[in-house]
Amino acid sequence: MLLHLSTWPEIEQYLSQSQGIIIPIGSTEQHGPTGLIGTDAICAEAIAQGVGEMTQALVAPTLGVGMALHHGAFPGTISLHPTTLILVIRDFITSLVRAGFQKFFFVNAHGGNVATLKAAFAETYCYLSDLRLPGADTVQCQVANWYMQRGVYTLAQEFYGDQEGSHATPSEVALTQYVYPDAIKTAPLAALGPRQWGIYGAADFRRRYPDGRMGSNPALATPDQGQRLYDVAVAELAKAYGEFLAAEPV
Amino acid sequence: MLLHLSTWPEIEQYLSQSQGIIIPIGSTEQHGPTGLIGTDAICAEAIAQGVGEMTQALVAPTLGVGMALHHGAFPGTISLHPTTLILVIRDFITSLVRAGFQKFFFVNAHGGNVATLKAAFAETYCYLSDLRLPGADTVQCQVANWYMQRGVYTLAQEFYGDQEGSHATPSEVALTQYVYPDAIKTAPLAALGPRQWGIYGAADFRRRYPDGRMGSNPALATPDQGQRLYDVAVAELAKAYGEFLAAEPV
Amino acid sequence: MLLHLSTWPEIEQYLSQSQGIIIPIGSTEQHGPTGLIGTDAICAEAIAQGVGEMTQALVAPTLGVGMALHHGAFPGTISLHPTTLILVIRDFITSLVRAGFQKFFFVNAHGGNVATLKAAFAETYCYLSDLRLPGADTVQCQVANWYMQRGVYTLAQEFYGDQEGSHATPSEVALTQYVYPDAIKTAPLAALGPRQWGIYGAADFRRRYPDGRMGSNPALATPDQGQRLYDVAVAELAKAYGEFLAAEPV
Amino acid sequence: MLLHLSTWPEIEQYLSQSQGIIIPIGSTEQHGPTGLIGTDAICAEAIAQGVGEMTQALVAPTLGVGMALHHGAFPGTISLHPTTLILVIRDFITSLVRAGFQKFFFVNAHGGNVATLKAAFAETYCYLSDLRLPGADTVQCQVANWYMQRGVYTLAQEFYGDQEGSHATPSEVALTQYVYPDAIKTAPLAALGPRQWGIYGAADFRRRYPDGRMGSNPALATPDQGQRLYDVAVAELAKAYGEFLAAEPV
Amino acid sequence: MLLHLSTWPEIEQYLSQSQGIIIPIGSTEQHGPTGLIGTDAICAEAIAQGVGEMTQALVAPTLGVGMALHHGAFPGTISLHPTTLILVIRDFITSLVRAGFQKFFFVNAHGGNVATLKAAFAETYCYLSDLRLPGADTVQCQVANWYMQRGVYTLAQEFYGDQEGSHATPSEVALTQYVYPDAIKTAPLAALGPRQWGIYGAADFRRRYPDGRMGSNPALATPDQGQRLYDVAVAELAKAYGEFLAAEPV
Amino acid sequence: MLLHLSTWPEIEQYLSQSQGIIIPIGSTEQHGPTGLIGTDAICAEAIAQGVGEMTQALVAPTLGVGMALHHGAFPGTISLHPTTLILVIRDFITSLVRAGFQKFFFVNAHGGNVATLKAAFAETYCYLSDLRLPGADTVQCQVANWYMQRGVYTLAQEFYGDQEGSHATPSEVALTQYVYPDAIKTAPLAALGPRQWGIYGAADFRRRYPDGRMGSNPALATPDQGQRLYDVAVAELAKAYGEFLAAEPV
Ligand code: NI
Ligand code: NI
Ligand code: NI
Ligand code: NI
Ligand code: NI
Ligand code: NI
Repeated sequence: MLLHLSTWPEIEQYLSQSQGIIIPIGSTEQHGPTGLIGTDAICAEAIAQGVGEMTQALVAPTLGVGMALHHGAFPGTISLHPTTLILVIRDFITSLVRAGFQKFFFVNAHGGNVATLKAAFAETYCYLSDLRLPGADTVQCQVANWYMQRGVYTLAQEFYGDQEGSHATPSEVALTQYVYPDAIKTAPLAALGPRQWGIYGAADFRRRYPDGRMGSNPALATPDQGQRLYDVAVAELAKAYGEFLAAEPV
Repeated sequence: MLLHLSTWPEIEQYLSQSQGIIIPIGSTEQHGPTGLIGTDAICAEAIAQGVGEMTQALVAPTLGVGMALHHGAFPGTISLHPTTLILVIRDFITSLVRAGFQKFFFVNAHGGNVATLKAAFAETYCYLSDLRLPGADTVQCQVANWYMQRGVYTLAQEFYGDQEGSHATPSEVALTQYVYPDAIKTAPLAALGPRQWGIYGAADFRRRYPDGRMGSNPALATPDQGQRLYDVAVAELAKAYGEFLAAEPV
Repeated sequence: MLLHLSTWPEIEQYLSQSQGIIIPIGSTEQHGPTGLIGTDAICAEAIAQGVGEMTQALVAPTLGVGMALHHGAFPGTISLHPTTLILVIRDFITSLVRAGFQKFFFVNAHGGNVATLKAAFAETYCYLSDLRLPGADTVQCQVANWYMQRGVYTLAQEFYGDQEGSHATPSEVALTQYVYPDAIKTAPLAALGPRQWGIYGAADFRRRYPDGRMGSNPALATPDQGQRLYDVAVAELAKAYGEFLAAEPV
Repeated sequence: MLLHLSTWPEIEQYLSQSQGIIIPIGSTEQHGPTGLIGTDAICAEAIAQGVGEMTQALVAPTLGVGMALHHGAFPGTISLHPTTLILVIRDFITSLVRAGFQKFFFVNAHGGNVATLKAAFAETYCYLSDLRLPGADTVQCQVANWYMQRGVYTLAQEFYGDQEGSHATPSEVALTQYVYPDAIKTAPLAALGPRQWGIYGAADFRRRYPDGRMGSNPALATPDQGQRLYDVAVAELAKAYGEFLAAEPV
Repeated sequence: MLLHLSTWPEIEQYLSQSQGIIIPIGSTEQHGPTGLIGTDAICAEAIAQGVGEMTQALVAPTLGVGMALHHGAFPGTISLHPTTLILVIRDFITSLVRAGFQKFFFVNAHGGNVATLKAAFAETYCYLSDLRLPGADTVQCQVANWYMQRGVYTLAQEFYGDQEGSHATPSEVALTQYVYPDAIKTAPLAALGPRQWGIYGAADFRRRYPDGRMGSNPALATPDQGQRLYDVAVAELAKAYGEFLAAEPV
Repeated sequence: MLLHLSTWPEIEQYLSQSQGIIIPIGSTEQHGPTGLIGTDAICAEAIAQGVGEMTQALVAPTLGVGMALHHGAFPGTISLHPTTLILVIRDFITSLVRAGFQKFFFVNAHGGNVATLKAAFAETYCYLSDLRLPGADTVQCQVANWYMQRGVYTLAQEFYGDQEGSHATPSEVALTQYVYPDAIKTAPLAALGPRQWGIYGAADFRRRYPDGRMGSNPALATPDQGQRLYDVAVAELAKAYGEFLAAEPV
């Protein structure tokens, strides 16, 4: 059930049965010479909607622009400042808490969002409590990174081994190929450089990772792998969402 | 050409030919008993992508959550504070100016966004100039409301006359029916109350417009009308975008 | 009745009879070679006080500095950022709501303020409601632009035709001549350039409108015209204020 | 020379001779049963304009609303938060530094503004320097409280002795009587309570000082005293402004 | 009793007997060629803890970084913006008010903190009241500058006369020598320049006071003097704290 | 070498040899019935200073108050909002970058700080770059959690097994016992409840963990264990700092 394809009376009805909601959050950032700029938004949205179908949960609109300042030296990247994203998350959750939602399950596709998301949760719990909204003190937020689910990780190792890398990975590229088979891109890729993981400012990032990839070989990706990754991710996250809902508030 | 389905080298290539970009901005808010909560996001995205195809312009990801605080007393509405939205717009534009974009054409589907958007443009021009970014002093932003294009307005009058109203209008509902024919909703609608237009706080809004509509009869909407409205909107906005691009900076 | 010339017990007494207040808002910005930098503040204050006298309404101190960033490349302009002005409006209204005011009628003299004012109203309605102040959910704000009143517009057409332009207009200059006859300035004025209306950043504005005027010929202004414009503006806004007060909250 | 009654070319001309400006700052707050709510704005404006005439300095528009949160439990008080006022001062000064101003002399009439003003100066020096504006590193701001000038203090002691108090003082009331002789108010005044000076929150202030006065007897004020206070204040502040201008930047 | 060496049940117990707390606030900034960068933090902490022992009051952790932007052109200085420090103070006090504290006694060692602290108090009183926290409307904050206590001032005059100066003073250096006898520094000191006191931006400060001192001769300082200054400061501030506590809320 | 016990010329000298600095960051929050409220600040400071001695690196003043909103329902906790802490970190780092520092090694003792710290790093990299400070684009920040160092973890398992828990752990309590042997507290401790780890809002936290511990048995702690943990932590972090310094910027 998609929030944007629902009416407000349908949401009112939904709330009488569940106070949980799934929120896809991605990013709009360079993903190497062949990865789509929307890779993270696409992955988060597709998987979140899959989880929503499997669990009959409501899925919110995708937060397609996240915290990607370190990718800012590549054209096409759009990023919020962390302080902006915190306000967005705070406003987003607060709107839904006013309506009666209690459990916020963020399906995340971008490592760069995680810290800011967690900071935003802390900011928001306090904000809701200060507003004295009904139910404020039992609100729970959780962030679930699709790429870190056990089955996803195992598959990625099986498919790509140490060419998975950590940005513009074949896993995420495969998933976008599955979702958008008409948007598969090819380009010559330089050999993988020495392995390293530091992430600092945007200019440093581009010097360090000249074509945008971090130790990955996205040329290995296929749509079929994408489908298998998708299936595993949806199944595991559906289970995780169920457990999140089942956990009683204290 | 969709930003999220492009790679960064493709954007680099695009920038060598054009510095313009189209940005759809909608809202996530109640649209009466039968209108989709995502109505404005859907309309903005569909039309912006249509304009992008017609003009070979790049289309950014949709800003699906806007300024809808006045709809906040209906479940399902998600809104940013104006101050938050200003920061989002500022960050969004700044990211793109760093890459070389100069002309920002916002295709807007929600009246409640307009004031904040314009305030954000003023804030952003100054911010870009203070950052001393290359090209900062020639950046131009424009907001184009699809529902206010002359041809759209004429068609809406022809189709719905004084039952068009001003929120949850049959025009916008028809357009979503054209885009999402599987998500057409029906519900009994109260007779139209006395005509009035005041918009103040959220509680006041719900007292004033109990089912969320403002003088509209969305039951008149059909997908075919939606298609015609779409066609006219795309054509007129494509022309407007062309003129916007053609206007030389001074 | 002027707030700044009243005592707090007088305001307490006033509140027992009316919860409305008139707030003049102008700007401090260049108005071409002959227009006063305080033109908008002067116009807003004079007209608001006229409306106050005619309706026995309380008039707040003038917000003399507004959102004029686009005029920032001319010396003498003082501007708030939109985000600053939103906080000013929020604090201003909140102070008065704490005392019991409910209806805020902004008499505005500067087009550049409108978007930020409307954004500020939305921000403030939510803020007041979150503070749970008594009466928060029935507060109403309205902005009335003196230069857009029908009678003012008609007179301006009659007096100046297409030399009215849109900034540093003879209308507003005439009104300041009526209010400050000792401060009438003259200077040679370049012929009107090609008509255009775009407003972007400050540097662009000065390139586009080198002496600060936007298609106007303020040399046509006379104090007598100013008085007639003043009279019409006061009469029409007094009527508008009366209707604003009379509209029952829901 | 008043900024609001000048044109931008006049300011350009002024800047070729002086980079100093006088900025009146007051407050809009209760001043006891007989004091005008605009007392501080009126005093600051009148004296600043007097100083401007005497020194041929430019005088900016009055900042009529300041930091008066502690007076917030009395109707008619309008206050900015300190954080808002800091942004206002920052924007105000920055606008003028862009034009070439260097020396900012605030004529202040409200003790509650001083701390926030000084904090704003520190914030602004850093902000200007970060913006790398020409002349940023030689900007100087100074706050001069008219009521603390030696001659003013001496006169106040002579006129009112220990009935001067510290808020809604006969001195400031006398000055407003001199400026607005038609707005002299009378009301029965309770005897002076025990002397104390603590200022904390707004509710505490009203409990502590039930009619708004702090140990003062404004019934002693006369317009003639107001004139003498005005004359002394203007003379001393004109001297102070001259010294401020004369001090060479290092 | 030190907060950081206590457990939460001990604080709960303390609150049943007292709602007062002492908060040391210093700065991390250059103190001339021989003064420690932590001088103000060291002085504030030592004296506050002394006061705490003498009065059996709870002492909070030291705010070691304050508002020292004007010292920013000397390496080692760390400063918060005034707007940041206001938020820090607000959060700090709010945390403690939630627990039941009512009286906040700031022992301050840095003149540059005073304005921002007072602005923060005003901001915080309003914030607490808006949050409707229990006891919000009786909270009291006070700042006590150790270097301005009468006995301290007298001793400083006796010890150093007009070589006390106003930054990197022998008084404060002596006190740090008493606290950290192993960290006494020596360096050649230029003769005292002409006396002046202006403080503006950071670059100006360094031009004006090239080695960081403001008219002081810290070479006069001895640890014994430091001890005597400490003793006097503690005794006088203990008395001031007692009076602060004893003053009944109204 | 401690920043607060150094002079500015000493820092200038240090910068000619190293551009690295160690910054201890802790928290001021409840640590169960026997843990000190300053536990995290104490641990961070002691270990950071140990690392500084071992590596001859400069150690900044301790950030003793962090992000502990979730502990806010226990008296004695002091917390910054995440948005406040981001500004503090931004100001802190920016001050030091202005002086020439490049490598910021945060020794952290509180899990609740990590997300906000990382968000702050991203915010700060962009801010520094926007300020165009020399060296802005090669600044590197790193957070090192002492409690997650391999040797520390191994020792904790050896000492406490599954009674280590995750808040108010015997490890951190032991370390504070080693540093402050005179401040060892005892109290009866309830048996460990069912294992769980969720952290949401402050009220939820107190309901979930009634005495403040999260699955830990701090009664097992001894000062000797504290010393061994300290030694291991210092050794491993000294090594990590060395590697951080050695990594060449790209
Ligand atoms: Ni990705
Ligand atoms: Ni709509
Ligand atoms: Ni105007
Ligand atoms: Ni006053
Ligand atoms: Ni000092
Ligand atoms: Ni801890």
